[in-house]
Amino acid sequence: MTDALNLADKLSTFDERWSPRTVTTFNGHDVMVVKVEGEFTWHSHRDTDDFFLVLKGALDIEMRDRTVHLEPGEMFVIPKGVEHRPVARQETHLLLIEPTGTPNTGNTATAAARRVV
Amino acid sequence: MTDALNLADKLSTFDERWSPRTVTTFNGHDVMVVKVEGEFTWHSHRDTDDFFLVLKGALDIEMRDRTVHLEPGEMFVIPKGVEHRPVARQETHLLLIEPTGTPNTGNTATAAARRVV
Repeated sequence: MTDALNLADKLSTFDERWSPRTVTTFNGHDVMVVKVEGEFTWHSHRDTDDFFLVLKGALDIEMRDRTVHLEPGEMFVIPKGVEHRPVARQETHLLLIEPTGTPNTGNTATAAARRVV
Repeated sequence: MTDALNLADKLSTFDERWSPRTVTTFNGHDVMVVKVEGEFTWHSHRDTDDFFLVLKGALDIEMRDRTVHLEPGEMFVIPKGVEHRPVARQETHLLLIEPTGTPNTGNTATAAARRVV
């Protein structure tokens, strides 16, 4: 069992962008923090919904038919199968939750390695 | 598909304590916000881990062998089967994630009704 997890402390341990760090797990999901900046690749996850909560900065989640803009304290769930591209115009910190083992690009060949902090 | 979910906006729509409101769902889980104050009942969830993130205020999660103190931006996962009692010494706002249908007391007879905001 772990102690309280301070998300800002976890985020202060690395600077790499688009490289999620797992801070804990629950019910078969990884709870991750990530620093993002710039544009990610268009992708979708066939079998899993994708949970985003903005902790700092701002995030645009572009989908083929619209864009959802998220500020700190705002969240969005991308339903399974929906193509999306996260875009951050500044350094942005996110809480992500995905089933353990989900590749972040929807494709194991291009996904960032999962690391634990 | 929903728009951006602003957690503070959702919390501003009610004042009742210990009555979680579901703001969205993902992968068979309810994502909920709740206002708490005072002591909840001792309980455990036999089959599910319990995700807590403090948004405002402060929460003590008492367990039989120790207490975890959470401030805003801090989270904790209570493993399945572990008896716990949340205690808030002031008005405290939480993000909770649990499998859809999980009674908040671990017991359907005493659980608060799930509502959607």
